[in-house]
Amino acid sequence: MTEKGLLIVLSGPSGVGKGTVRQAIFSKGERDFIYSISATTRQRREGEVDGVDYFFKTREEFEDMIKNDQLLEYTEYVGNYYGTPVDYVQKTIDAGKDIFLEIEVQGAMQVKERMPEGTYIFLTPPNMDELEARIVNRGTDESPVIRQRMEKAIEEIELMRYYDYAVENDTVENAVSKVLAIIQSEHLKVSRLLESKLPNQGE
Amino acid sequence: MTEKGLLIVLSGPSGVGKGTVRQAIFSKGERDFIYSISATTRQRREGEVDGVDYFFKTREEFEDMIKNDQLLEYTEYVGNYYGTPVDYVQKTIDAGKDIFLEIEVQGAMQVKERMPEGTYIFLTPPNMDELEARIVNRGTDESPVIRQRMEKAIEEIELMRYYDYAVENDTVENAVSKVLAIIQSEHLKVSRLLESKLPNQGE
Repeated sequence: MTEKGLLIVLSGPSGVGKGTVRQAIFSKGERDFIYSISATTRQRREGEVDGVDYFFKTREEFEDMIKNDQLLEYTEYVGNYYGTPVDYVQKTIDAGKDIFLEIEVQGAMQVKERMPEGTYIFLTPPNMDELEARIVNRGTDESPVIRQRMEKAIEEIELMRYYDYAVENDTVENAVSKVLAIIQSEHLKVSRLLESKLPNQGE
Repeated sequence: MTEKGLLIVLSGPSGVGKGTVRQAIFSKGERDFIYSISATTRQRREGEVDGVDYFFKTREEFEDMIKNDQLLEYTEYVGNYYGTPVDYVQKTIDAGKDIFLEIEVQGAMQVKERMPEGTYIFLTPPNMDELEARIVNRGTDESPVIRQRMEKAIEEIELMRYYDYAVENDTVENAVSKVLAIIQSEHLKVSRLLESKLPNQGE
């Protein structure tokens, strides 16, 4: 009985450094997991390979995928569609491999609706603690700029609520080691082990 | 706002090597946590210090603690009581320090009833996988000895159900690094972070 792979979703506010952390995780090569390949309608660029860099689709094909519920999440950006094909994710998990998605917050929430069993990691900016302290003590006079930063931080914390883990991106190295600890520990969860090993002894 | 410490309970079948793993974790000294000091009615030995090695109690004092619900768990062994004082554990957690208990399975279950928010780690013998495969394929002929080992393994898996994580004690080094990853990852849980940082923004 093969243990199922994990769906790992790394997200967080834009500009927080998700891409850098994801690249560092994959270049470390410690864990054997698969990076989720997106489908897109944008033009293939020189050197890009279909099924490696992207699944390249026509607009019609992509809209069929939307209609047929074949995307975990999708978005339109500068006139092109980008999305995560559900069958690629599902096949990887069923084959016992972890699949890693690095996506925007809106996309992550779409994925969570479909696959709540995934592991959702929220990357926070390094100054989160400081901002949180300000939020807790708010009411004292602050400049409009600070207020605005505070409001942004509140919004970010509100989003964090929907995630399983929060990792502060203070340094890329620290963030990577924390994400790897989370993945290792998720694999050790009794609920996952029992599910995979004794499928007929469940309640 | 101080983040609360974690209650970490390491348990598992007798003879699995809990003590060795616990000692290795503490001698590594990577994480700043406190080993839970037991209360006992046994005689203090040469060199032992009250409040360091044990909290030494008279039989009457210990029985008062039982009556007053001041023990997270206790057991009687060779005519002496051993138990975990609840206030020491609670004070450590409230001070934002992790507290580490290494106890027998029966004691662990007593603790879980009182403090279900703890992190419960089950240490399994290194041959668990093999035994599990046998359990799954049982029904074929096996010797009585193998059957007995299988029954033992079934009992162990049944107990594992009540824990959050299972760690195979294949090598002490591997087991230690897994336990440390679990503790690190538990600290990154959004549920814990929000509880400690924004106590009045719940729901």
